[in-house]
Amino acid sequence: MSDVTTTDLYEVTMAMSYLREGMTRPATFSLFVRDLPPERGFLVAAGLESALDFLSGFRVGPEDVAAFASALHRPERDLALLLGLEFTGRVRAVPEGRIALAGEPLLEVTAPLPQAQLVETYVLNQVSHQTAIASKAARCVLAAAGHPVIDFSLRRTHGPRAGFQAARLGAMVGFAGTSNVAAATAEAVPAVGTMAHSYVEAFDTEEAAFWAFARSHPGPVTFLVDTYDTEAGVRVAARVLRDLGRGPGSAVRLDSGDLGALAVRARAILDAAGLPDVRVIVSGGLDEYAVDDLVRSAAPIDVYAVGTRVGVSADAPFLDSAYKLVEYDGRPVMKLSSAKVTAPGPKQVFRRPGYADVIGLSDEQPPDGGIPLLETVMRGGRRTGRRPRLAECAERFAADLAGLPPAARRIRDPVAPRAVLSGRLTDLADRVRHRIEESVAR
Amino acid sequence: MSDVTTTDLYEVTMAMSYLREGMTRPATFSLFVRDLPPERGFLVAAGLESALDFLSGFRVGPEDVAAFASALHRPERDLALLLGLEFTGRVRAVPEGRIALAGEPLLEVTAPLPQAQLVETYVLNQVSHQTAIASKAARCVLAAAGHPVIDFSLRRTHGPRAGFQAARLGAMVGFAGTSNVAAATAEAVPAVGTMAHSYVEAFDTEEAAFWAFARSHPGPVTFLVDTYDTEAGVRVAARVLRDLGRGPGSAVRLDSGDLGALAVRARAILDAAGLPDVRVIVSGGLDEYAVDDLVRSAAPIDVYAVGTRVGVSADAPFLDSAYKLVEYDGRPVMKLSSAKVTAPGPKQVFRRPGYADVIGLSDEQPPDGGIPLLETVMRGGRRTGRRPRLAECAERFAADLAGLPPAARRIRDPVAPRAVLSGRLTDLADRVRHRIEESVAR
Repeated sequence: MSDVTTTDLYEVTMAMSYLREGMTRPATFSLFVRDLPPERGFLVAAGLESALDFLSGFRVGPEDVAAFASALHRPERDLALLLGLEFTGRVRAVPEGRIALAGEPLLEVTAPLPQAQLVETYVLNQVSHQTAIASKAARCVLAAAGHPVIDFSLRRTHGPRAGFQAARLGAMVGFAGTSNVAAATAEAVPAVGTMAHSYVEAFDTEEAAFWAFARSHPGPVTFLVDTYDTEAGVRVAARVLRDLGRGPGSAVRLDSGDLGALAVRARAILDAAGLPDVRVIVSGGLDEYAVDDLVRSAAPIDVYAVGTRVGVSADAPFLDSAYKLVEYDGRPVMKLSSAKVTAPGPKQVFRRPGYADVIGLSDEQPPDGGIPLLETVMRGGRRTGRRPRLAECAERFAADLAGLPPAARRIRDPVAPRAVLSGRLTDLADRVRHRIEESVAR
Repeated sequence: MSDVTTTDLYEVTMAMSYLREGMTRPATFSLFVRDLPPERGFLVAAGLESALDFLSGFRVGPEDVAAFASALHRPERDLALLLGLEFTGRVRAVPEGRIALAGEPLLEVTAPLPQAQLVETYVLNQVSHQTAIASKAARCVLAAAGHPVIDFSLRRTHGPRAGFQAARLGAMVGFAGTSNVAAATAEAVPAVGTMAHSYVEAFDTEEAAFWAFARSHPGPVTFLVDTYDTEAGVRVAARVLRDLGRGPGSAVRLDSGDLGALAVRARAILDAAGLPDVRVIVSGGLDEYAVDDLVRSAAPIDVYAVGTRVGVSADAPFLDSAYKLVEYDGRPVMKLSSAKVTAPGPKQVFRRPGYADVIGLSDEQPPDGGIPLLETVMRGGRRTGRRPRLAECAERFAADLAGLPPAARRIRDPVAPRAVLSGRLTDLADRVRHRIEESVAR
C-alpha cells in the first residue's frame, strides 16, 4: 500500500463522485492557517518539500484501489475511474523557511478537481505539522539570544519520523545541532550528545565513568554531572578534565534542578579549577519560555538543549489550518457558515516592509513595495526546480526574521502582524457572498 | 539507512565506551511514566508492538556504522565493535491495551548493556507517544457514554504515521471507526466519512451536491449540512433523503457553530420530515471535554467525530516518561538527583482489586489478590508469542476499564489511583541510596 491510502475516506468518496459527474475541470484549493495559536507572533512555512515529494509520486495503483474498495465495502470495479490517477497539477507555495502570517496561503493547488481533492489530507498533514514545529523552534532561537540551541527531542516526538522533522526544522531555524543521528546524517546537521545518567550509574563511581568515557572518545567531551549530587559531580568533572588536559570544547551538562542556580555554581567551580573554556550545557524540559527566563537571569549558560516540549510544540501542538476550495472551473467559491468564512479565488501574498502584508488575488499587480511570497513550485505534477538544500531554507528564514517587528519576536505576549485583504479580493468576496446568499435564500 | 540510526547520538557514544571497557554484562532498563499529566486518571499502555517490531529487526549494519562514524567525525574502524550487533535480550511488558498507573514499569529490557542502551531512544519514543494518544482517546470513549466515537485526526497529526497510530489506538480503546483509509484497511477498523465543504461548494447548489453524491454512493449517505446555513442545509438534506428513501443509516453532519443547539434544530427538522432514523453526527475541534459537555447537555447527537485535539493529545501531547537503568550485572542502581529519584532493580506490578497496585521486585511473590501485569514478551531477541490482534488489545482494555474506579474515569478532575512500593522494593531502595551516598561523600 502506498501513501495514496494515507487519506481520509471522504477524499475518495468525493473523487469518485466528481469523476462520475464529469467534474474534472481545474479547481484551486488554498492551504492557510486561520488564526495563530496564543503566544505566536509569526509562522515559519514548512512541510512543502514533503508535500511535493508526495505529489510527485502520487499515483493510484491497483493496491490502492483494492484498499479503497475494502474501506467502502464496494467492488473494485466501482472505483475503476480512480485507477492510474496521477497528480498533474500546479502548486504555488511560500518556500520553506519563509515567515508567514495568519490567513496567508502557504500553498495553493490547482488541478483537475478529483486530483486536488484526493491529495488534501496528506498535504494538509505535512504542512500543518511541520509549520507548527518550525514556528515553535524558531521561538527557541529567539529566546536563546545568540546562544547555541540544540535538539534533543527524538525520544518523545510523535513517532520517529516526527523526530526527524523536528531535528531538520530546528536546523532550518538556526539550531546548532541535534542528537538525532538519522536526521543529522541525512540533513548534514551537526550531531551532538555524549552520555546519559545510565552511563554514570553503570560504573562504580562518577569518576570511573568520566575516565572511561574519555578513554573511548578523544577530543572534547561533555560530562553529565547531575546523576547523584550536581556540585559534587561538577567537581569530579573538573578534576578529570584538568587531568585530561581537555578544557577547550569540553562541557558539563546539567539536566535537573534549578538550572540557573546550578549553572552559577558549576561556572564558579570550573573557573576555580582553571577551566574557563569548559562550557555549561543545560537540558531537561526546556522550551522557549524556560530559555528566555534563564537568558534574562544572565545565568552563565553556554548552550541550551531543548527537547520534548519543542519537538511536540507542547503549548500549541496543532495549527488551525485549512485546505479550502476557492475556485472551481473559473468560478470563485467560499464557505459562509459560522466564523469559518473563507475568501474566494486563487491568491497571492504581497509582503511589504514591516510585515504590512496584503493578501490579494493571484493575478493582481503588487501594491507599492509589495513582493509576492507564493512561487510556482510544481507544474504538470513536476517540480519546477530542484529540491532546495536545508541551508537555503535556513537563509530564507534568517532573512525574513531580520525584518520581523520586535513585537512579533517577543517570547511572551507577542503581537502578530495582520495581513489585510486587497480591495479586489474584498470586492470579490462580497460578490461571491451575495451570490451564495441569494442562492441559499431561494 | 535503517531504524537503527533513529537514535540519540549518545546511545552510540555510550555503547562504544561500554564495548571498549568490556561492560557487556546484562543490564535491566525500566520504562515508566513518572507522573500523569493533569486531567488524566490512568494510562493505556501502547506502543509495545511497534517497539517489539523494532527490537526484532535491530541489527547494526555497515550503513548504520557509516552514519554513526559520520555523525561522530570518526573513522568507521573506531566503530567496528558495533557492526553486526543485534538485540538478543529479554523484554517484559504490560500488554497493549492494559490500563497502567504512574510509576509502573510499562516495559523492562534486560540485555547486554550496549544493546539495552542502543535501543533506548526508539523504544521510549514509541511507547511514550502511543501511550499518550491511547490514554487521550480512551477518555473520549468515556465522555461519549455509549455513543459511537470516530477518528478524523489524520489531517493534523504529527505526520502520516502518527495519524495511523491515532486511528489504530482509537479503535483499540473502543472507537467505532476512522476516516483513515490506510489504518482502516491495515487494522480492520470500519472506515467512515463522506463529504467536505469543498464538495458542496463545487456544485451550484447544496441540493445538487447531495443528489450527485447519492448517485455515486448507493445505500446510506451522510450529508454535510453547514457549508452555508446549517438549518437550511438540514432542510435540503431532509428533502433529498426523503426523496431518495434512504433514511435508516443515513446522517447529517454538523461541523461548526453551537453543535448542541444546532443538533436540537436538526433533530426537529429531521423528525418533522418523517426521518427519525437519520442520525446526527457532530465534528469540528472536539475532544473529551467538548464531548462530555454535549453528552451532559443531552443534545440529540448520535455520533461524535473527534480529530486533531485527540490525535495530538492536545492538552498533554507528551508523557513524563523515562527509560532508566535499574540493574547492571546483578547490582541494583538508581539516580538520586533532584526530584527524579528512580527505584532500583527489575520490577513487577501487582494489580489488586480497585487498582490498589503494588510495585515490587520482579522476583517477589504477589501480595494477596495481586495479579502480575508485566509478561515476558521477548526472549533472546525474539517474540515469545505471535503479535496480538487489535481486537485482543481492545478486549484487554475493556476488561481493565470495567474495574477502574469511577474517580479515575472522570473527564474533569479525575483522581488517579497511586501504586505503592512493596516492602522489599522500599528496603532495596534505601540500601542502594545509602550505598551511593556513602560513595559520593567519599
